[in-house]
Amino acid sequence: MKIAIAQINPTIGDLPGNTQKILEMARKAVVEGARLLLTPELSLCGYPPRDLLLSPSFLEAMDIGLQQLARDLPSELAVLIGTVEENFKAHKTGGKTLFNSMALLEKGRVKQVFHKRLLPTYDVFDEHRYFEPGSEANYFTLDNVHIGVTICEDLWNDEEFWGKRSYITNPISDLAILGVDFIVNLSASPYSVSKQKFREAMLKYSAVRFQQPIIYANQVGGNDDLIFDGRSFALNRQGEMVCRTYGFEQDLGIVEFDEVQRDLQLASVAPEYESEDEEIWHALVLGLRDYVRKCGFSKVVLGLSGGVDSSLVAAVATTALGKENVLGVLMPSPYSSEHSISDALVLAENLDIKTHIIQIGELMQGYDKTLAQLFAGTEFGLAEENIQSRIRGNLLMAISNKFGHLLLSTGNKSEMAVGYSTLYGDMNGGLAVIADVPKTRVYSICRWLNRNGEIIPQNVLTKAPSAELKPGQVDQDSLPSYDILDDILQRLIHDYQSSAQIMAAGHDPVVVDRVIKLVARAEFKRRQAPPGLKITDRAFGTGWRMPIASKWAAIKNSYHQVFSLRQ
Amino acid sequence: MKIAIAQINPTIGDLPGNTQKILEMARKAVVEGARLLLTPELSLCGYPPRDLLLSPSFLEAMDIGLQQLARDLPSELAVLIGTVEENFKAHKTGGKTLFNSMALLEKGRVKQVFHKRLLPTYDVFDEHRYFEPGSEANYFTLDNVHIGVTICEDLWNDEEFWGKRSYITNPISDLAILGVDFIVNLSASPYSVSKQKFREAMLKYSAVRFQQPIIYANQVGGNDDLIFDGRSFALNRQGEMVCRTYGFEQDLGIVEFDEVQRDLQLASVAPEYESEDEEIWHALVLGLRDYVRKCGFSKVVLGLSGGVDSSLVAAVATTALGKENVLGVLMPSPYSSEHSISDALVLAENLDIKTHIIQIGELMQGYDKTLAQLFAGTEFGLAEENIQSRIRGNLLMAISNKFGHLLLSTGNKSEMAVGYSTLYGDMNGGLAVIADVPKTRVYSICRWLNRNGEIIPQNVLTKAPSAELKPGQVDQDSLPSYDILDDILQRLIHDYQSSAQIMAAGHDPVVVDRVIKLVARAEFKRRQAPPGLKITDRAFGTGWRMPIASKWAAIKNSYHQVFSLRQ
Repeated sequence: MKIAIAQINPTIGDLPGNTQKILEMARKAVVEGARLLLTPELSLCGYPPRDLLLSPSFLEAMDIGLQQLARDLPSELAVLIGTVEENFKAHKTGGKTLFNSMALLEKGRVKQVFHKRLLPTYDVFDEHRYFEPGSEANYFTLDNVHIGVTICEDLWNDEEFWGKRSYITNPISDLAILGVDFIVNLSASPYSVSKQKFREAMLKYSAVRFQQPIIYANQVGGNDDLIFDGRSFALNRQGEMVCRTYGFEQDLGIVEFDEVQRDLQLASVAPEYESEDEEIWHALVLGLRDYVRKCGFSKVVLGLSGGVDSSLVAAVATTALGKENVLGVLMPSPYSSEHSISDALVLAENLDIKTHIIQIGELMQGYDKTLAQLFAGTEFGLAEENIQSRIRGNLLMAISNKFGHLLLSTGNKSEMAVGYSTLYGDMNGGLAVIADVPKTRVYSICRWLNRNGEIIPQNVLTKAPSAELKPGQVDQDSLPSYDILDDILQRLIHDYQSSAQIMAAGHDPVVVDRVIKLVARAEFKRRQAPPGLKITDRAFGTGWRMPIASKWAAIKNSYHQVFSLRQ
Repeated sequence: MKIAIAQINPTIGDLPGNTQKILEMARKAVVEGARLLLTPELSLCGYPPRDLLLSPSFLEAMDIGLQQLARDLPSELAVLIGTVEENFKAHKTGGKTLFNSMALLEKGRVKQVFHKRLLPTYDVFDEHRYFEPGSEANYFTLDNVHIGVTICEDLWNDEEFWGKRSYITNPISDLAILGVDFIVNLSASPYSVSKQKFREAMLKYSAVRFQQPIIYANQVGGNDDLIFDGRSFALNRQGEMVCRTYGFEQDLGIVEFDEVQRDLQLASVAPEYESEDEEIWHALVLGLRDYVRKCGFSKVVLGLSGGVDSSLVAAVATTALGKENVLGVLMPSPYSSEHSISDALVLAENLDIKTHIIQIGELMQGYDKTLAQLFAGTEFGLAEENIQSRIRGNLLMAISNKFGHLLLSTGNKSEMAVGYSTLYGDMNGGLAVIADVPKTRVYSICRWLNRNGEIIPQNVLTKAPSAELKPGQVDQDSLPSYDILDDILQRLIHDYQSSAQIMAAGHDPVVVDRVIKLVARAEFKRRQAPPGLKITDRAFGTGWRMPIASKWAAIKNSYHQVFSLRQ
């Protein structure tokens, strides 16, 4: 029996469009001789549909769409389609009114429906907001082959692999006891750095432990802040990789179940990426391209400062959309260095993208004059620095509004963390392309990008980073060096370390204290930031839910002291 | 037995500060002769702590804080404190690692701990993200009185009252079977219009049905977008209101349980508000005051356009913070009408607040000149209109940065819904005070405010609303009249109606179609909006989770057509 994996790139809510993508994959699968076609979790509407699920008319359309898809699919193919089903018992027994389901379609109708059992409600996931967990082991029989069905999180609870349980049940264990021939896992698992290695290790562990071949089908494509990397794969009963599709693009995987050997046969295995930098690069390209296109744009504009962040974003955009669709705008002020212009122009030449140069000196004088009376007797400071950044933000939005280009913002994660950015200034944009990429990683991706010749100008990579908002300014006037800052941020944000733990790792207590306070104080800026492409296991954005008017960070270092004084 | 309700206003994460508030209430309660003190849900850290709960050092501080509080409380008082407890079994049996708990403190130690059983995970609530539901009925005995303990949502599942179940269990039913003397409900229930009437009706229904006196203690105060209204109350065994505290301020309620009659005695009952407008007014005042103060500011700045929105926000700010802490900035352009200045000045005089007038004409010319080459041959349009709004936004932020005033944004819910606002322009601000108040409601609150004499100038209430971004412009050039728009939005957003249902209610199909598309298209703006004070049952903000790059709204009206064409 041949099984095809339809690694599609759905658009959220675009039921007709997603249906077409599934039908195209189905036709190809038939040509390949497949008997069963797998599609990702919620493939009909795309993942995550979020609060569209609260709209009755959306649910009704899903239902109509599923019935129609059943009729339109090739009759020789059985197909698993991700959809939602109503929990009819909810009003009597309580619980959410929907299930996150897979429907088995065959010969024009819905033959069976399976409900997801483990519902992630952490990080970017809100499944308990919408769904009731399924309570039964899911499987079906096709041509005498017994197939277990799991949906995404259902396979993320192997207590031996994790060393703990996240949920009371482990669906693969139930299926192994039932003695299915193999297990399919229909997923929409968002990308983060090195997650694929983790997925492969985890499912390999389960395959070996339960002696179960596993076929994992993942969604691909960018949906707002989330990038789905695809890289669907299949493991045989020994946990060996027998099939892997390409990452960051639509693909059709074909794997064969040998009914005599009762195992999956070796098929095509796409290679792994050579480095994390390469992997992140492909993620950013896909995330940017999909956000721009799915929002109905074709062209983008961005400010080019001659710095490393805007240089990387311009390179990502050029690869994602084509050089003819990227406009770089240089907006020098009297505080800008020579090289800020020359470096940006070399970059634009390397990328072969169009640029405009707009001088902002007169507008700066205009604001100075307009505010002269009100600001009389005050010193040049943050207010004036921000005005420059906001003039640039305003000009870029004017270009965006006038010509219909989507504005990209270019701030990195280190800046977003400590608030080293101007709200309504350089933070402006429809998408924050590298908002989850720490500064040190920005450099390493640029060096990777230059591996076969200069794309990011060498001077951009070697000069001291600077916002150039006052004469002679460099970032390290106000921030620790980025290797120190990024290590502190990694410990604080990703490793949930306390200030004491970060200090114990050798960091200067004064610096640690300051960084923690900056991170807390910048919450109001992040709340108003554009969506940023998530590439780590903890990004600012939908998975980061912090109060703004909070006193925790301000007191955490003195907390023990406060209480011990009162004892 | 006298029971005191400590209706405190905690700051999120401010464990020492919240502890002090509880201790002050405890001292007063002792003076009043109370034996038991009730505090709101999660009173130690304030509700909602959100992702602070993911920080081990935060949890450790909670633990230390609770132990210390137990020692510091008056020994004659038993006190229920809202805190979190570790779910020690989680790693073995699965489930979340925390409980949302109430600790009974007495004589220097923690005597008993109760876990919340029903965990809201909808709208603004994310409790399944952090907590495991408790599985047991919660009660304790104090001086031979048997007291049932419920936490907020635990009493929101009376299937007879609702006509359906939201959860499988109904904790009050378990407690009634156990035969407790009365039930306490420790809550952090956010405000929305008329919710108090609903709460009182619901708990009255349960009190009568289960013959149980109920004491409901609610948090008060603003925490980011959420306003907690307090208005704690007690119902006797017949469901009669025997005690109610004041709304929108800290208060201490005292109610007596008569151990002979086994019922609560009549005590002090604060009056209801006369109108929804009055109630919303008090909510906005509290929400603004707390956001400003809890963020560490004392003064605010806002743009005064002479329109009804900025007039209302200025009035709210003046009441919340005092006239000396509110700065109004008038920024006329060549397109501004005479009355935009005169109306704003009359308002400022009525409120007795300070103003500045800043002409923006020269800056507009500056942008025109700076962009002349790039924009050559294009018509005046949205780009130029937005530049004006962004100049104003930039000037207001400059003042905010220079003098440390928090900027208030003044957009209403109708505008936020359809995107009739400029991102990085008039949307700028730390808090969007009336972002959840529909335009028609803005008018009615202003009329209520003027009931005893003019505060909002009469001309502001009678002239046609206009953004004044081009000559002669009025809002109704681009939008349906606000009574029609607000009715469509109410049906779409609050009642989850489909376009067909909204049209069936008598609205013009072309208008309905257009409004639905505008609402979807404005999602990218709302994502970057400041927090807005929630006053309705469905606000844009933390409880509104919509995808941006989605095709649902674009296709929903033609969906049946799309599929029928393909049949």
